[in-house]
Amino acid sequence: MARLIPVSDPADPRLADYVRLRDMNLRKSLEAEHGLFVAEGEKVIRRAAGAGHPVRSLLMSRRWAEPLADLLDGLDAPVYIAADAVLEAITGFQVHRGALASVERLPLPAVDSVLAGARRVLVLEDLVDHANVGSIYRCAAALGIDAIVLSPRCADPLYRRSVKVSMGAVFAIPYARMANWHDDLVKLRATGFTLLALTPDQAATPMDEAATGDRIALLLGSEGDGLSSHWLDEADEAVCIPMSPDAMSAGVDSLNVTAAAAIACHTLSRMVPA
Amino acid sequence: MARLIPVSDPADPRLADYVRLRDMNLRKSLEAEHGLFVAEGEKVIRRAAGAGHPVRSLLMSRRWAEPLADLLDGLDAPVYIAADAVLEAITGFQVHRGALASVERLPLPAVDSVLAGARRVLVLEDLVDHANVGSIYRCAAALGIDAIVLSPRCADPLYRRSVKVSMGAVFAIPYARMANWHDDLVKLRATGFTLLALTPDQAATPMDEAATGDRIALLLGSEGDGLSSHWLDEADEAVCIPMSPDAMSAGVDSLNVTAAAAIACHTLSRMVPA
Ligand SMILES: C[S@@+](CC[C@H](N)C(=O)[O-])C[C@H]1O[C@@H](n2cnc3c(N)ncnc32)[C@H](O)[C@@H]1O
Ligand SMILES: C[S@@+](CC[C@H](N)C(=O)[O-])C[C@H]1O[C@@H](n2cnc3c(N)ncnc32)[C@H](O)[C@@H]1O
Repeated sequence: MARLIPVSDPADPRLADYVRLRDMNLRKSLEAEHGLFVAEGEKVIRRAAGAGHPVRSLLMSRRWAEPLADLLDGLDAPVYIAADAVLEAITGFQVHRGALASVERLPLPAVDSVLAGARRVLVLEDLVDHANVGSIYRCAAALGIDAIVLSPRCADPLYRRSVKVSMGAVFAIPYARMANWHDDLVKLRATGFTLLALTPDQAATPMDEAATGDRIALLLGSEGDGLSSHWLDEADEAVCIPMSPDAMSAGVDSLNVTAAAAIACHTLSRMVPA
Repeated sequence: MARLIPVSDPADPRLADYVRLRDMNLRKSLEAEHGLFVAEGEKVIRRAAGAGHPVRSLLMSRRWAEPLADLLDGLDAPVYIAADAVLEAITGFQVHRGALASVERLPLPAVDSVLAGARRVLVLEDLVDHANVGSIYRCAAALGIDAIVLSPRCADPLYRRSVKVSMGAVFAIPYARMANWHDDLVKLRATGFTLLALTPDQAATPMDEAATGDRIALLLGSEGDGLSSHWLDEADEAVCIPMSPDAMSAGVDSLNVTAAAAIACHTLSRMVPA
């Protein structure tokens, strides 16, 4: 049986992995320094462990020890048990799903190796919002994307919120991070990918009339500025999802990047025969 | 020139409209009682006022008074100016966009009247997440949906987060709320709509092979349980967005409802000639 360790002091140094989970700046440096991330909720914790990430510790309210008992039994990590108010004091928010795990990151594979054998790929440039990153992974898993490549500055798929929103798809889809924003897209093209740059610009080719090919990479831009002009230039074709002529007057000049990704992945799944 | 009123006491009763914006239970009762909602950020505040919602008051850090000066000048509402720390103490979070307005709700139109003349409609059953509701409005505006109908218990499009995520599209798309969950779907069909029920069930008809018609209503279900069996039964056809056979083993058994809505609206815009 796992070691259940009651804790009650929010400042307990053994709980340092879990402090202020909504403080993004703090978390970024803390998680990078210790090579960890936080998995939230039973399903996500199981997927993280199942994907081979070593578990450093767990922190939960007592009612979660039982549904997780089979998992806890197989782990060598301490399981801290805290009252809801203590959980909230440590993490800075009400932990609805009641169970957290601090989990080790694994070294990411190289871009080349995630591309080997992949035919449909997403490339994300500088996305900022972790919920968008997570939901794009979920879409990608649902809609047959083989791999994801992140720009050097794209938001972290292993940030707590990304992992949670992805429903654990971040553990299922192979992904890698480019080392060089300026040069690495060319390499992707050199491995035989047709690069389609997704843009709200309605003068671009409608996505469902886009160039096809054996290997397609869809480039998606950031929430604020969209794709850089450098990446738009490097792409084989700029493609758009047609929007209603009334959208502009309603104040809507683009789709949310997740919605654009969903439509583009779906269109792709209908274009290239599986 | 508008009345700029410096405030420094977070407990100032004039600021009661803005307290604890992340406390959903408190906000629900407070906003219902006073018939108000909170608009966040310059763009959304302008859209809310532009859509004819009377502004009760504004609360912002000083730097926002100037970019909003033209709007403030035309308003008869008090403008409270607070330091960032005071804003945070009142609202319970860091107000990144720096400007808030408390705005009056207007009576919602009846279902019949938003349907008159509409050809493509979304019907949302019991969605819980305000960000999903907001992003579905944004998709709907971008992709040519004429109106939205909400089930009696569906999350509020005028909740702060819905409004923000919608980019103000909640002010552009006509919408109404059903009075009766059990009976009102039948009335929709009686007005000539073909009801397509969106379900992750892969045995359903693929969306792009679905029945067409002059007037189409897409039914979308809640994040947890999906569409009720009653609504599935009432629909003319159950339709699905095909998912990758590998998705299940990756732990993904459905799309996020926003992603499903985006794909369905896009497919619809390509099916029915505009
Ligand atoms: C919110 S948009 C960025 C808006 C930015 N102002 C621009 O002009 O690109 C984020 C990303 O979603 C994708 N996107 C949004 N709307 C799109 C559309 N109608 N067609 C294709 N891609 C779209 C693009 O990849 C874009 O970079
Ligand atoms: C997260 S899903 C609900 C999942 C729920 N377990 C179910 O079986 O319906 C929320 C809504 O998104 C829509 N949806 C999700 N995936 C879909 C798919 N592959 N095809 C069609 N609609 C889908 C449906 O309307 C569903 O009710």
